[in-house]
Amino acid sequence: MYRTHTCGELRLENKDTSVTLSGWVQTVRKFGAITFVDIRDRYGITQLLFGEELNKELEENPLGREFVLQATGTVNERSNKNPNIPTGEIEILVSSFSILNKSAVPPFTIQDDTDGGDDLRMKYRYLDLRRNAVKKNLELRYAVGRAARNYLHNQGFLDIETPFLIKSTPEGARDFVVPSRMNPGQFYALPQSPQTFKQLLMVSGYDRYYQIVKCFRDEDLRADRQPEFTQIDCEMAFVQQEDILNMFEGLIKSIFKDVKGIDYNEAVQRMSWEDATWNYGNDKPDIRFEMKVLNLKKPSTVYTNKQDNAGLINGADFKVFDEAETVVAIAVPGCSEYSRKQTDEITEWVKRPQIGMKGLVFIKVNADGTYKSSVDKFYSEERLKAIADAANAKAGDLVLILAGAEERTRKAISELRLEMGKRLGLRKEDEFKLLWVLDFPLFEFALEDQDGGGAGRWVARHHPFTSPKPDHIEMMISNSPKVDDPEKYLEHPYANIKANAYDMVLNGNEIGGGSIRIFQRELQEKMFAALGMDAEEQQHKFGFLLGAFEYGAPPHGGIAFGFDRLCAILGGSESIRDFIAFPKNNSGRDVMLDAPSAIAAKQFDELQIKLDLK
Amino acid sequence: MYRTHTCGELRLENKDTSVTLSGWVQTVRKFGAITFVDIRDRYGITQLLFGEELNKELEENPLGREFVLQATGTVNERSNKNPNIPTGEIEILVSSFSILNKSAVPPFTIQDDTDGGDDLRMKYRYLDLRRNAVKKNLELRYAVGRAARNYLHNQGFLDIETPFLIKSTPEGARDFVVPSRMNPGQFYALPQSPQTFKQLLMVSGYDRYYQIVKCFRDEDLRADRQPEFTQIDCEMAFVQQEDILNMFEGLIKSIFKDVKGIDYNEAVQRMSWEDATWNYGNDKPDIRFEMKVLNLKKPSTVYTNKQDNAGLINGADFKVFDEAETVVAIAVPGCSEYSRKQTDEITEWVKRPQIGMKGLVFIKVNADGTYKSSVDKFYSEERLKAIADAANAKAGDLVLILAGAEERTRKAISELRLEMGKRLGLRKEDEFKLLWVLDFPLFEFALEDQDGGGAGRWVARHHPFTSPKPDHIEMMISNSPKVDDPEKYLEHPYANIKANAYDMVLNGNEIGGGSIRIFQRELQEKMFAALGMDAEEQQHKFGFLLGAFEYGAPPHGGIAFGFDRLCAILGGSESIRDFIAFPKNNSGRDVMLDAPSAIAAKQFDELQIKLDLK
Repeated sequence: MYRTHTCGELRLENKDTSVTLSGWVQTVRKFGAITFVDIRDRYGITQLLFGEELNKELEENPLGREFVLQATGTVNERSNKNPNIPTGEIEILVSSFSILNKSAVPPFTIQDDTDGGDDLRMKYRYLDLRRNAVKKNLELRYAVGRAARNYLHNQGFLDIETPFLIKSTPEGARDFVVPSRMNPGQFYALPQSPQTFKQLLMVSGYDRYYQIVKCFRDEDLRADRQPEFTQIDCEMAFVQQEDILNMFEGLIKSIFKDVKGIDYNEAVQRMSWEDATWNYGNDKPDIRFEMKVLNLKKPSTVYTNKQDNAGLINGADFKVFDEAETVVAIAVPGCSEYSRKQTDEITEWVKRPQIGMKGLVFIKVNADGTYKSSVDKFYSEERLKAIADAANAKAGDLVLILAGAEERTRKAISELRLEMGKRLGLRKEDEFKLLWVLDFPLFEFALEDQDGGGAGRWVARHHPFTSPKPDHIEMMISNSPKVDDPEKYLEHPYANIKANAYDMVLNGNEIGGGSIRIFQRELQEKMFAALGMDAEEQQHKFGFLLGAFEYGAPPHGGIAFGFDRLCAILGGSESIRDFIAFPKNNSGRDVMLDAPSAIAAKQFDELQIKLDLK
Repeated sequence: MYRTHTCGELRLENKDTSVTLSGWVQTVRKFGAITFVDIRDRYGITQLLFGEELNKELEENPLGREFVLQATGTVNERSNKNPNIPTGEIEILVSSFSILNKSAVPPFTIQDDTDGGDDLRMKYRYLDLRRNAVKKNLELRYAVGRAARNYLHNQGFLDIETPFLIKSTPEGARDFVVPSRMNPGQFYALPQSPQTFKQLLMVSGYDRYYQIVKCFRDEDLRADRQPEFTQIDCEMAFVQQEDILNMFEGLIKSIFKDVKGIDYNEAVQRMSWEDATWNYGNDKPDIRFEMKVLNLKKPSTVYTNKQDNAGLINGADFKVFDEAETVVAIAVPGCSEYSRKQTDEITEWVKRPQIGMKGLVFIKVNADGTYKSSVDKFYSEERLKAIADAANAKAGDLVLILAGAEERTRKAISELRLEMGKRLGLRKEDEFKLLWVLDFPLFEFALEDQDGGGAGRWVARHHPFTSPKPDHIEMMISNSPKVDDPEKYLEHPYANIKANAYDMVLNGNEIGGGSIRIFQRELQEKMFAALGMDAEEQQHKFGFLLGAFEYGAPPHGGIAFGFDRLCAILGGSESIRDFIAFPKNNSGRDVMLDAPSAIAAKQFDELQIKLDLK
């Protein structure tokens, strides 16, 4: 037996007990004839005391950092207690020890505040994982998964495994493919999600399904994307949108409770996609703080039912506003006394390439009721007041105004709002605010080619299995998807079809999304056709699903949560990589394994493929 | 809302309640002016009664099998109760209904005893999954997984996800590989198991790890193998073999209890690999019954410490025995009165190509104390008695003797034993007997090439990470693996090295296997070298693991259970396919999806590979 206790469990009440511990050497401190060694394992750190009689043995077998040590001795009350660790009142008076394994000097320190850079830590991930900062992330991840499983179990969901070697049906994202040796010339694909399988399970009558499952997308990797990622994937039959929203806000609340001890008793807010983008500049607003966007000049190609406030800025001969497609503002609370240096700094911030604005207009709503602006020569104080009032600015606030091209400006005001929220401490790490965003458009119109499917066509905003709102099904069935003039696609009825889809947003991050699905063969065919798939392609790619819809498919819908991101947010981090045991870098490489890598000639031979390098 | 209750929950105490049910039409029975409809969902079946006033509506909208129906009405006490189903005392007097979806006539009946053949059921798997017989298998699978997770959670294990896109290091089985678009010319592999990752997690200090995880092997498929399969994968640090055996027989007992309600309180038997093969002809004996093998003439290349009973058969001038490498016998209880027809039938059975024997010798131990044999002219009654006694035959038993080539004959007697056990009802479906098989040889010697690694070399019986028994480590380190004369490999010290490995056997099936691992870099290098890997290949394939062993690797070991098989055995089935939602056929095809399949030219182009069909 290697140990009687872990390095985290001994207390004063264990005094005089004979124990054996095993773990890693954290520190070695010599004090004359005695030596203190801190020994560490997953559960904690315990101080070992090597007395004079053992010191000779220690000198012959010196301990180094990260050596694996087994020590037997008696639990002793410490003279010099350490109140910062749970075992701080005791130490082990060692009677015998054994070095189970030696360690070379690690390339970085195994501490929360390590001296290792990202690359080094990834290469030696097995050492990085020893750090408490990483360990608590993986423990949190386990706790989140466990909480999700418990909730779903109690709600009658079944965890049903779906296959990983499936059929390649690229839609939007690229598939990873796997050559089949037994079927030469043919390939499996790795699933981008179990979407069609969970729908088949609904057709099969398994009316509450879930899975915590790996999914794969061969996309160019942005900072915080991984080629393999994990979803909490769920589907229910005989449900309407309301049933799904209730069930899965329950899931997240249950995770809050189990993992963070948070009682999230308030109702989860709901917001239409249109209101979200209108008021916050994006469809996943952080509602921990207000600072809503004032649309002075509205993005013209998006909103169908919204009135902007162009009258507040028009007619002043200010070309920047007059020529901009879009002008938007936010009122930043309590910042009217920002210095020139400070407003310049924000201006530089919005001019960074990631934001891409040409400049920034501000209005200071001074505490004394006066107004001061960077565009004083175009706007009277009265007009400045009108703008500031429309932006809900109070005395002491600072109104920031951006102007420019539609899409870029909308994104920029959203980023600026988040940035100012962060600077003002309004985005508290320990505050969690959930939000449902609803009523997404069913289609987007691709004016330019996005993925080789051609330009000037409808693409599914969510995915091709999402149902239109019940009221909009007729609009979809009775109209041809054909768009005669791509420039005027907004006039096509399809532009107004809303989806029966929903995203769950947590603190400004989309943590989950789903929809009520199409379950009628005719409507599904109509959807595929709208996306430019002819009957033959439909049959080749999704014949099994269309077939299944012929044999009594029930109404159904579901949702998938991004497990990596959910864990990261709950852990107060922006990076999902810190919450994955063995992540890949931005080139999709595992630098520890050195994968991907070349394979043997025999493997090519058996798979009957060869390289075709450009 | 589509339903207020499921089709399985209404009882007499719900009488007069107004309810809405949704589900599938199982049967429609007309009785004059009224119609009975059985409606089915995951939870059960409920009888609906359509009275006279609704019958007209029913005639206009006739219901067919598998239609999706929503019905509202009042719970009624049945006049004609059905005691066979939980809802059999009630029916719903329908007041209104709605057909949610129609169904074509299914290609086979949705019943336990379906009329659909295997191929048809696989093609329409989404309908096959509706059958109760399949549903209860998937529910059992979920229950087994849940029980495993609960036990492991309570024992402090963490579920940690390991990557699916890893490095190709084929050892034994072939890897499935995945071309990397971002790293042209390079490939990922899908994991055959998370072996090296779980060992790295031990190095990282996560001393109790588990995962229920998909694994992949590109092997030619036998009847009951799948290219993707699921393991309960576990690893522990600071443990010896005894710790592992105790922990994981606890796991299986806990599953027995939670899933089957079985209190498995007896100690799990243990048996050395040598005793298992010696007494049962294979290393995964079904110990629900005795019928041990008598080794009359022992397989000469396997056993180091066993004495056979050649004296019992030698010197009788019976060439079949004299010329055979191996002669083995079993005593089948109570079968001495088998007719000529019956012994002929068994003889034919062992002559089938799957068994491959040339014939069968029998000795009837008659109730009256006489002996009758098919080799009477070679052996006196006295000699027959001696053989029968050695086989532990009692009066009334039938001794069956096989002779032939070593390996084939050993397998044949094992198969014959199982077959006779089955015929005699000794392999009871509801009896579960666990067994640990221990002390496997660490190496096998490949006289012929097995996997392209060359002939005349040592191969790892388990895998290259398995530790020798502590007592045998010195034997391994101090001897060169070189075998001068392949024919005499048994004389090489490596042939006697036993592994610190263990298999768990349930009712004659290996359900799990594992080992204490090597955790010292030098020993691991020695092992790789013994398997024919030079330093460069070691570094290329397993450099990360050897590196990890330099930084304080703790002693560790683990086990992996075949989840699909475990579920099948607990469900009383021989086929794992019945316990997988979407299995593949023997060519590795998913006939429902029609996968694998051709991929698009654009995909080849992006991946920079092309076909090289022979």
